Amino acid sequence: MDALPYAEPSPGLPLDALSALLAPRSVAVIGASGDASRIGGRPIAAMLERGYQGRILPVNPNRPEIQGLRAYASIAELPEAPDAAIIAVPAASAEQATRELAERGTKAAIMFTAGFAELGEAGAEAQARLLEIARRHGMRLLGPNSLGLFNTANGFYGTFTSSLERGYPNSGPIGIASQSGAYGMHLFSMARDEGMGISCSVTTGNEADLNVGDLIGWMAQDPGTEVIAAYSEGIRDAGSFLAALDLARRNRKPVVMMKVGRSEVGSAAARSHTASIAGDDAVTDAVLAEFGVVRARTTEELLDVARLAVRKVYPAGNTLGVLTVSGGAGVLISDAAEAAGLPMPPMPEDAQAVLRRDLPFCAPANPVDCTAQVLNDLSLVTRFGHSLIRDGGYGSILLFFTHAGGAPSITPRLREELRGLRAAYPDRLLVLSVLADPPQIREFEEDGFTVFADPSRAVAAIHAMGRFGDAFAADRPAPPPALPGFGLPATTPSEAEAKRILARAGIEAAPERACARADEAVAAAEALGFPVVLKILSPDILHKSEIGGVLLGVSDAAAVRDGFALLLQRAASAAPDARIEGVLVAKQLSGGVECILGVHRDPVFGPVAMFGLGGIFVEVLKDVSFRRCPFGEPEAEAMIRSIRGAPLLLGARGRPVADVPALARMLSRLSVFAHQAGPRLAGIDLNPVFAMPEGQGAFAADAVIDIAEDAA
Amino acid sequence: MDALPYAEPSPGLPLDALSALLAPRSVAVIGASGDASRIGGRPIAAMLERGYQGRILPVNPNRPEIQGLRAYASIAELPEAPDAAIIAVPAASAEQATRELAERGTKAAIMFTAGFAELGEAGAEAQARLLEIARRHGMRLLGPNSLGLFNTANGFYGTFTSSLERGYPNSGPIGIASQSGAYGMHLFSMARDEGMGISCSVTTGNEADLNVGDLIGWMAQDPGTEVIAAYSEGIRDAGSFLAALDLARRNRKPVVMMKVGRSEVGSAAARSHTASIAGDDAVTDAVLAEFGVVRARTTEELLDVARLAVRKVYPAGNTLGVLTVSGGAGVLISDAAEAAGLPMPPMPEDAQAVLRRDLPFCAPANPVDCTAQVLNDLSLVTRFGHSLIRDGGYGSILLFFTHAGGAPSITPRLREELRGLRAAYPDRLLVLSVLADPPQIREFEEDGFTVFADPSRAVAAIHAMGRFGDAFAADRPAPPPALPGFGLPATTPSEAEAKRILARAGIEAAPERACARADEAVAAAEALGFPVVLKILSPDILHKSEIGGVLLGVSDAAAVRDGFALLLQRAASAAPDARIEGVLVAKQLSGGVECILGVHRDPVFGPVAMFGLGGIFVEVLKDVSFRRCPFGEPEAEAMIRSIRGAPLLLGARGRPVADVPALARMLSRLSVFAHQAGPRLAGIDLNPVFAMPEGQGAFAADAVIDIAEDAA
Repeated sequence: MDALPYAEPSPGLPLDALSALLAPRSVAVIGASGDASRIGGRPIAAMLERGYQGRILPVNPNRPEIQGLRAYASIAELPEAPDAAIIAVPAASAEQATRELAERGTKAAIMFTAGFAELGEAGAEAQARLLEIARRHGMRLLGPNSLGLFNTANGFYGTFTSSLERGYPNSGPIGIASQSGAYGMHLFSMARDEGMGISCSVTTGNEADLNVGDLIGWMAQDPGTEVIAAYSEGIRDAGSFLAALDLARRNRKPVVMMKVGRSEVGSAAARSHTASIAGDDAVTDAVLAEFGVVRARTTEELLDVARLAVRKVYPAGNTLGVLTVSGGAGVLISDAAEAAGLPMPPMPEDAQAVLRRDLPFCAPANPVDCTAQVLNDLSLVTRFGHSLIRDGGYGSILLFFTHAGGAPSITPRLREELRGLRAAYPDRLLVLSVLADPPQIREFEEDGFTVFADPSRAVAAIHAMGRFGDAFAADRPAPPPALPGFGLPATTPSEAEAKRILARAGIEAAPERACARADEAVAAAEALGFPVVLKILSPDILHKSEIGGVLLGVSDAAAVRDGFALLLQRAASAAPDARIEGVLVAKQLSGGVECILGVHRDPVFGPVAMFGLGGIFVEVLKDVSFRRCPFGEPEAEAMIRSIRGAPLLLGARGRPVADVPALARMLSRLSVFAHQAGPRLAGIDLNPVFAMPEGQGAFAADAVIDIAEDAA
Repeated sequence: MDALPYAEPSPGLPLDALSALLAPRSVAVIGASGDASRIGGRPIAAMLERGYQGRILPVNPNRPEIQGLRAYASIAELPEAPDAAIIAVPAASAEQATRELAERGTKAAIMFTAGFAELGEAGAEAQARLLEIARRHGMRLLGPNSLGLFNTANGFYGTFTSSLERGYPNSGPIGIASQSGAYGMHLFSMARDEGMGISCSVTTGNEADLNVGDLIGWMAQDPGTEVIAAYSEGIRDAGSFLAALDLARRNRKPVVMMKVGRSEVGSAAARSHTASIAGDDAVTDAVLAEFGVVRARTTEELLDVARLAVRKVYPAGNTLGVLTVSGGAGVLISDAAEAAGLPMPPMPEDAQAVLRRDLPFCAPANPVDCTAQVLNDLSLVTRFGHSLIRDGGYGSILLFFTHAGGAPSITPRLREELRGLRAAYPDRLLVLSVLADPPQIREFEEDGFTVFADPSRAVAAIHAMGRFGDAFAADRPAPPPALPGFGLPATTPSEAEAKRILARAGIEAAPERACARADEAVAAAEALGFPVVLKILSPDILHKSEIGGVLLGVSDAAAVRDGFALLLQRAASAAPDARIEGVLVAKQLSGGVECILGVHRDPVFGPVAMFGLGGIFVEVLKDVSFRRCPFGEPEAEAMIRSIRGAPLLLGARGRPVADVPALARMLSRLSVFAHQAGPRLAGIDLNPVFAMPEGQGAFAADAVIDIAEDAA
């Protein structure tokens, strides 16, 4: 289960600059203070206390010595170009300091100074100037408005957070990357209070240059970091973020992330905070899922997942076996596992029989309830535990001993039994739920068990380990083949033209004919077979149904003739300037399931495909799934199967099974089309698409391709 | 906000017997042991240690003295009839001990002994005998298979739980009632470890006699208990449970409850554990909501709610105001509040302007982000806090200071500011999210703030306080009027007869006529207007569509004639023995929204009404709401509005608004009908019901009344 040798990082991640930032051989502190409680004094005091292994170079025009260190009057007087610099001067002086540092050849600067983009337009302009200066000289910038960072491996504490007043973290494998300073340090403080081991913690603030994605990428190849915990209010740069997640997955490093701004209120707050751009939340969900990132909803959940992940046991195809001294807890755990989607298959029948022989009144299925009887004969823990792991074959085992596990009359002997179990199966995920005093909990943890007081929290964390395992085990999906003969028109095409363009990409529409005259329409309807659908045909009318431009169930020649006239009349009155090319006559499909396939351009992640069922499923229930374009048919099918209403396509309640493979093929091709189309494509709507019964295909009954007028 | 004088308890709660059990003047211990680690020794040791105020009467045939107390050789030799007795003898002797105690006049017995209904049929029979003995002599029974109980008010520790090895609880206002022994003590241990004050804790085990409902009822009138935390795997007796919840609500005592067995797996485990009967989970949800009980999904959530509830501030119409030093936390809290359904309205504009004047770079809407600047000038906490409470008028305030609130350089001054705020608004719910060392957290708690490290947990608990407040503030719903002229047929009626019966209850069906002959059917169709629906009419065919017995959209006289013949032929072939009364001709409704209204008989709670939208909403999405019968129109309307698909009835996306008042009237009348019908009614299905556009009513298009053949 060891990590493979590290993968080649994708280009575009600024790993060298980040090494200078996180492990500098020297650090200049601009605005250094002799007062350890001040913003320019705290990092120096912390580095001195934690034995920072590099050189600290305080810069202060008024004092020759700062906290016992030789100070320099100006950046120019520094004895060397420092790897890193901390800028802790007021906003008015920050630009000059930045320029001098950059000119001096500093590799990376941490800017504590606030008063930039978070304060509006003038601040944003000042921030842009900082970035321009840094870029010109090849210096990288963390912040401005950053609380800084620390690295426990080398004692580098480039931060002024007050969270260190209550103690420094244990060194350990968890790296924290947070956009928000206060919240990043909240995360860190909770982690420290729980005794978790931290490798480094970085807050990116306004992200003028370096962002959370860059930091995740650095941690993904940092030998000291094995688990990455991240927090963001909005991703600014898809490139570094996706490269970082990809590298972390290839290096088998789990990433657990909070991305806030889910709610309407939350999104509004996120836009005003740190001048952030909050992407659409459902898209974020889809992107995180694509890379096997576990999205945590609460700080506690994020820390639980990180705490368990440091065991480095990530069972693909995870299942849960439960050993409990309480039937009630067994039920509770079963509920939590089902809600999480973590399977709890029963023990094999023969193993159950053996357990029943060992302990007549146990419930041996799963949860395995060994009853309080086990507390009188603790050797049963070993026997039952062996059976669960060996016979049950579960990826993860949760052992619930509650307060009994912490009772002084029981703990020492229980510990002995559990150590044996741990030693016998070093590669299994073994989690304890006990209530005990902190020293006993530490002992269990040292023995290799992660301990949770609340079994529901244990279940959620265990489930996350399986999701990591699945992501690490999966092959990277093969890129779908490019579409031949691809072309995008100069402007938004008519429906008929849109369908022709899509047909060349293999996306089929219902059989139809464009008819300029009524008698052509009658002939077309007779050729296609009644009933037909009539639709006004104009490149200038995108939303036909809004002007009454669609007639369904037209059932004979006379009705076609009447309908043709009616549509032209409606178009003329609703859109007098529209170019009218005639009427589209299409075969009316029946017996299919109505779906919606679409693409929109996410401002961060580019084209994103959507799948949903028609009508109220999308409009009222928002029962849709998303995925970044392009993707292949297996991913498309997974999208289709993931919506709540999927049973409607899969034969629920005696319905015919729909042609899901054809639908997946259409969705995948749509994603490739959107990807190849580039930024001129604003969006595509295929609404409705009829998924016909098995083997009979899927057909778009309407198609809109929206070309961005102002795209380059 | 003080509790009103206690309400008159409903009859049926065994309050006197429970007082004997929880506050006995004397307790006999049958199977008393001198060894404090043994089941018969632990309660005596605990009572001696905790200064139990009554008389302990050990019974042991072999020893004259037990743990320094005079022991008695037999129950017969006891110097008095004890209020309570603990039975800690093996199963083989338990029945005799029960009989002797009952004959002696003992008021209540706690039976630790296991080996009864939890072990199957023979055990259930032995348990029934225990109950019969107890009943005959008027003795009440806790257990068997109970871990016992304790009451911190008088030091009565009638329990052998090992959870006390790590300490006794603080005395306080939280009462715990749990069916499961191990899980009840898990709850208690977590509460104790968090320093929460406990009044009493009772585990009911097999519930041969006393059950969780009885205990909730006792706590609801116990002056020492102000908050009730309950756990159950299944309610056995609706009577005592509902009476207890009603009493708790009238006495303004919040009840927070875990009812496990939500999942399929969980339900299966619950049925096998403690021989429990797990009611349908959605019904449990509905019943708890009806009484304002907050249902917790995890132990942690249950304890969070109980811990905050002891402040006794329950804001009806709760809203949340947030003061934060971290914009990120503000977003996170907004997300959590929206997910919980807790509104966060913005501050008034003029108050925002004042705050912006005080602190130019604050975000004053809500969350109010006072930025880390507040840490430099803590008087801002008071100014901002006053404004949030006074100007914002929020029911609850959450103050997020994270690690800064626990930093030694900040905590003492912050505490002063917060104390002033607390003193100024004693009746507001003020909650802190800080990370601090335990002594500092205790100080904040003593000042009247409840402290949560994780702000998401704070939000969930705050939301629960509002739900309690709403339940306490609400008038008890007026009982709906009884139906006049009510009658239920002897056996399951035909559709036409079912509709006539329901029509007398004011439940309208689509206009229709029962027709014995084809020409009658043609005449009926012409009178009703085409198109019509034809349905086979037989008291023996309940599910007509399964045999093809329904024809929709029959549009002229010839089609009626053909359809009549077709239905008779299908019925004859599918159900040759069925009595065929002809064909029902009904007006085909159009333009309405298809709904399903139904009633089923829950084994515990009796008739329960269901509302949902038609078709896939019920079948695939399970988007339905339930409520115990009977109920009035306001409750019916709340049920209708609570489903996810409700926007379909309320005019979503340009749809016509449906006649929801008519639908609510129908649903309420259905509930009254089901209530009056009594146990002979097995169920009712009105499927579909058409909710017509506003003002046009709601009509059942089909009706099935299912009469239980075997009901008394």
